[in-house]
Amino acid sequence: MSADTVARTSRGARHRAVPFTAVAFHDKLWARRQRVVRERTVPFLYGQMEKIGTIEALDVTKPPGPLAFPYKNNGTSTSVMYWDSDIGKWIESASYTLATHPDAKLSALIDDVVARIAKAQRPDGYFNSFFQRREPGKIWSNLRDWHELYCAGHLIEGAVAHARATGKDNLLGIVTRYADHIERLFGRGANQKRGYCGHEEIELALVKLYHLTSERRYLELAHYFIDERGRQPHYFDLEARARGANPVDFWHKTYEYNQSHMPVREQDRVTGHAVRAMYLYSAMADLASEYSDDGLLQACRRLWADLTGKRLYVTGGLGPAAGNEGFTTDYDLPNETAYAETCAAVGLVFWAHRMALLEGDARYADVMEQALFNGALSGLSLDGERYFYDNPLASRGNHHRWIWHRCPCCPPNIARLVASLGSYLYSTAPGELAVHLYAEGEARTEVDGIRVKLAQTTGYPWDGAVALRVTPDRAAEFALRLRIPGWCRAARLSVNGETVALDGILDRGYAHLKRVWKPGDQVSLALEMPPERIYAHPDVRADQGRVALKRGPMVYCLEAVDNEAPVQRLVLPRDGAIEAHFDATLLGGCAVLSGSALAQEPPSDALYGTRRSGTAAARFRAVPYHLWDHRDPGEMAVWLPEA
Amino acid sequence: MSADTVARTSRGARHRAVPFTAVAFHDKLWARRQRVVRERTVPFLYGQMEKIGTIEALDVTKPPGPLAFPYKNNGTSTSVMYWDSDIGKWIESASYTLATHPDAKLSALIDDVVARIAKAQRPDGYFNSFFQRREPGKIWSNLRDWHELYCAGHLIEGAVAHARATGKDNLLGIVTRYADHIERLFGRGANQKRGYCGHEEIELALVKLYHLTSERRYLELAHYFIDERGRQPHYFDLEARARGANPVDFWHKTYEYNQSHMPVREQDRVTGHAVRAMYLYSAMADLASEYSDDGLLQACRRLWADLTGKRLYVTGGLGPAAGNEGFTTDYDLPNETAYAETCAAVGLVFWAHRMALLEGDARYADVMEQALFNGALSGLSLDGERYFYDNPLASRGNHHRWIWHRCPCCPPNIARLVASLGSYLYSTAPGELAVHLYAEGEARTEVDGIRVKLAQTTGYPWDGAVALRVTPDRAAEFALRLRIPGWCRAARLSVNGETVALDGILDRGYAHLKRVWKPGDQVSLALEMPPERIYAHPDVRADQGRVALKRGPMVYCLEAVDNEAPVQRLVLPRDGAIEAHFDATLLGGCAVLSGSALAQEPPSDALYGTRRSGTAAARFRAVPYHLWDHRDPGEMAVWLPEA
Repeated sequence: MSADTVARTSRGARHRAVPFTAVAFHDKLWARRQRVVRERTVPFLYGQMEKIGTIEALDVTKPPGPLAFPYKNNGTSTSVMYWDSDIGKWIESASYTLATHPDAKLSALIDDVVARIAKAQRPDGYFNSFFQRREPGKIWSNLRDWHELYCAGHLIEGAVAHARATGKDNLLGIVTRYADHIERLFGRGANQKRGYCGHEEIELALVKLYHLTSERRYLELAHYFIDERGRQPHYFDLEARARGANPVDFWHKTYEYNQSHMPVREQDRVTGHAVRAMYLYSAMADLASEYSDDGLLQACRRLWADLTGKRLYVTGGLGPAAGNEGFTTDYDLPNETAYAETCAAVGLVFWAHRMALLEGDARYADVMEQALFNGALSGLSLDGERYFYDNPLASRGNHHRWIWHRCPCCPPNIARLVASLGSYLYSTAPGELAVHLYAEGEARTEVDGIRVKLAQTTGYPWDGAVALRVTPDRAAEFALRLRIPGWCRAARLSVNGETVALDGILDRGYAHLKRVWKPGDQVSLALEMPPERIYAHPDVRADQGRVALKRGPMVYCLEAVDNEAPVQRLVLPRDGAIEAHFDATLLGGCAVLSGSALAQEPPSDALYGTRRSGTAAARFRAVPYHLWDHRDPGEMAVWLPEA
Repeated sequence: MSADTVARTSRGARHRAVPFTAVAFHDKLWARRQRVVRERTVPFLYGQMEKIGTIEALDVTKPPGPLAFPYKNNGTSTSVMYWDSDIGKWIESASYTLATHPDAKLSALIDDVVARIAKAQRPDGYFNSFFQRREPGKIWSNLRDWHELYCAGHLIEGAVAHARATGKDNLLGIVTRYADHIERLFGRGANQKRGYCGHEEIELALVKLYHLTSERRYLELAHYFIDERGRQPHYFDLEARARGANPVDFWHKTYEYNQSHMPVREQDRVTGHAVRAMYLYSAMADLASEYSDDGLLQACRRLWADLTGKRLYVTGGLGPAAGNEGFTTDYDLPNETAYAETCAAVGLVFWAHRMALLEGDARYADVMEQALFNGALSGLSLDGERYFYDNPLASRGNHHRWIWHRCPCCPPNIARLVASLGSYLYSTAPGELAVHLYAEGEARTEVDGIRVKLAQTTGYPWDGAVALRVTPDRAAEFALRLRIPGWCRAARLSVNGETVALDGILDRGYAHLKRVWKPGDQVSLALEMPPERIYAHPDVRADQGRVALKRGPMVYCLEAVDNEAPVQRLVLPRDGAIEAHFDATLLGGCAVLSGSALAQEPPSDALYGTRRSGTAAARFRAVPYHLWDHRDPGEMAVWLPEA
């Protein structure tokens, strides 16, 4: 890293998240989702891994059986190759639930898995159940395709969560030995490989390991991986030739696929596999923060502008194409074929959260909320046992959540996000306490050494009225920063019953309430959330002449089960009123939108003709997108034609 | 075949095509295209086959080199596996040009290729350069995937064309020996395989071989292949188990992919790989005609209704999905990702032509014309040396004709259609001479033993005025059947200057002019062809709120090079006038459409917002779809939003 790319940025104080262990949800939505993840998803995921052999595969001394889940990438990889990452994400999810809800049986189960890993780990620290068992001769020979560092990263994330939740160091010891092995092997030294992983993940994991252990080598290793990425001579070229392969035979043709087509700090276009991109950018934001590295921060800002300005679904989903599980061209956002992998939206929540803390600008938390409530949460069924891999914005009725997948990356990804969601609500910095997301519940933290309890009473996200009770241990001056969501056109604020003019105190999208806070101070925030019509930029072909419905952070969709006329024939009149009402009995309780519509009536059965369709008066009913596909299967659409 | 499925149909006389050798084009469009195919495409295709090794591979005694064009179907097949079919189609195309334009050099070149095949053919008649050279142990072991009968079919079609064009029997002898071998091997006899090909083609080829040789065994073999298809126990299941494979591991999951999911005469839904479907239905129409088999005819009618009512692009393209190169669900016709393989549109021309002859109904010739002038012809560049494999109806500017393809099936397919196009214009039956397509030129045929010369003078397809001079050897009574295209809203007809009321003589879309024709009789047909707006059935989501432009048989598109505003931002006002004018200098001469448009202007750079785009006055210019991508690359769209 050259000196000129390192400079202190001139932004405000750097925020740190209030950990989820200090945040409790008392609301209907997240409290329920967390309970379901704890009681259903975590045991279910273990059961699935046991069933398909993921757990048993940790015994690397057993001879491998036939590959049960073949994967089609020219036969170069199989889902078995990623199984260690499923274990890492499961341990991470399970540990988050343990942190708030101790459970001796679950804890013992994790210990059993850890013992299996411990038994398999090589004396030099290496551990990968796939390669040790099946392909010992190919270890570290194909970083481009073979996910070893990716799997290591997820084990590290799992170990950090496990150590924080339980205080145990059994898994932490394993991953630090493994990280030390990796650190010895990779780097710019004479006898080191100048490699990095084709699937980013270990970089952000190493930052977490550094945060837990304060061992700066891990941060430096993450920095090396980030900064080495995309340099010439290209490691994936060298490595391919060393295998006797021709680099141009790379099955994705371009290194844009894994964001190594150029050094990361020079990148300004979001490319390739969406999950990889989100994990990379999350690590870049981490390092921009840790090193106050303006070059990385500027790259993050450029990539953010590209993503949110040209490549993001209105649901916060991302990566339209199945072919590369990722990005294509500007404004290419097809609805029915949207890939929009759940993991990618989860990854966007990770990145947006880091950017929000780093920049203190509400537009990052806006996108975090958009992805969380829509494109990410849709991946998990209300019962916690069914999952979307891809999240299209329109369906003919044949797209459903599945119980398992040959590449089961999404279930534990959404599970770990939900289980640790408390961490995404609040953050602190010297003299500041910020509220990024609203939900009924309580949090305990400290500002400048003063303990502060913060309680939210609200029906959010179904209602925009938020009452906050601020209870510092003793009266103390600090700034309470309340996010005024970008979707809100009219917000009213009062403190202890006295109206506060927002105009004067808005700072980067947050109401900056600096004052001496006394125990029991009451803040009222009223966020108007009428149903709104959303239009896409005209260069988004798929949405031309179409409208989407939002209310607050929620994107809505029409499902066949709620509508008499076929969903695909419904048109929204331009000026029709749209009503919202809360239905406590529907899908766990949610606000429903309804209003007048027009149902297109074809002039004949002919596929094409010279006459336009007529229309008949109809009604429509829309439900939050993340709740679709829980009832009778049928058509679904987010974007409707507008007449 | 049970007796109750065989019944004489009650339609009119069965028509036979007037062969292309008796039809000359004097127009600008087809005469030029035929010349280009003859002078450029046929030599170019040979050169490509020589370059990539297709010709050399005919020497099966040479040890095989590495596979130059790997194909990704789980490694089970490669494009090399289809090379014999490319040779068959090249010989067919070349022979068609030889038939009208003798060329000693080309003839010698074909003979050389035939000599190579003759040398390689096994004594028992088998010939397949791929299997003999690379996989002799796998011959006939995987009919589902491995295209041996498909390759045989194309060689047979090539041989029939070659024998008809040159009178030579060198290739004909090879393929009859091969067909005899196949006939011994496949069938319902005790020692025969009850198999059929995963890729239909040999069925229609055997009908052609029967027509040439009058050897009814070939017709019976075609009938066996058609009737055996999809019966239980399923041959592809048995065959897979015999290979030690599990039938459920079929990479396309369903036998709908190759139309063998049920017996063909029970099918009523167009499924799977589009080219396979078209070749199958073509053979079904052939056999319905040959055997007067009402069951097959009814199946053809049902499949036709399904295709044209729910699954056909306005361009006559078909098969929207790349994944199966074929059909998906009802009304699923995405524009930008349309696969719409050139070969599939060519195959639809084949099927439609057979149905037109069989049924005598103009709606078949309407679709034949629609596919020919749009989705098929688009596959071939004006210079004859570049080809579309897939024919999307919208592009962001990155879709272009290529010089070659790992699966180079389309170039010789469109070449053989163009070279033999004369066969698609006229047909005769006892007492009838039908005109299905209009183009300036001459034809010579016989009706009831009377020789008739028919000359068309017309600017069709750019102008709807057609003058026909009918010159029988001597005065004779017969019916001249003139197709009144389905797209035409107003047609006027006169004979020797006297107006003939169309109402009284319309028969299944044809003006049925029965009279005593004398040498030099003049028929004038005026087909109005104003620019028209076309709307899709509202269940076609991709086209909702959109309009396409047609004039006569031509579908139009907007290209960036012709329009000042970005194509994707243009909207057509509902009531704007659309003008047509013929531009003799553009793209070989074509009618261009133009008119007023609105250019959408986004309210901001934001991807989403609550405000609609504004619009500014603009103009649009549209060119025939089949001529796109000949100038500066850029956006293209067939369907435009209408405001």
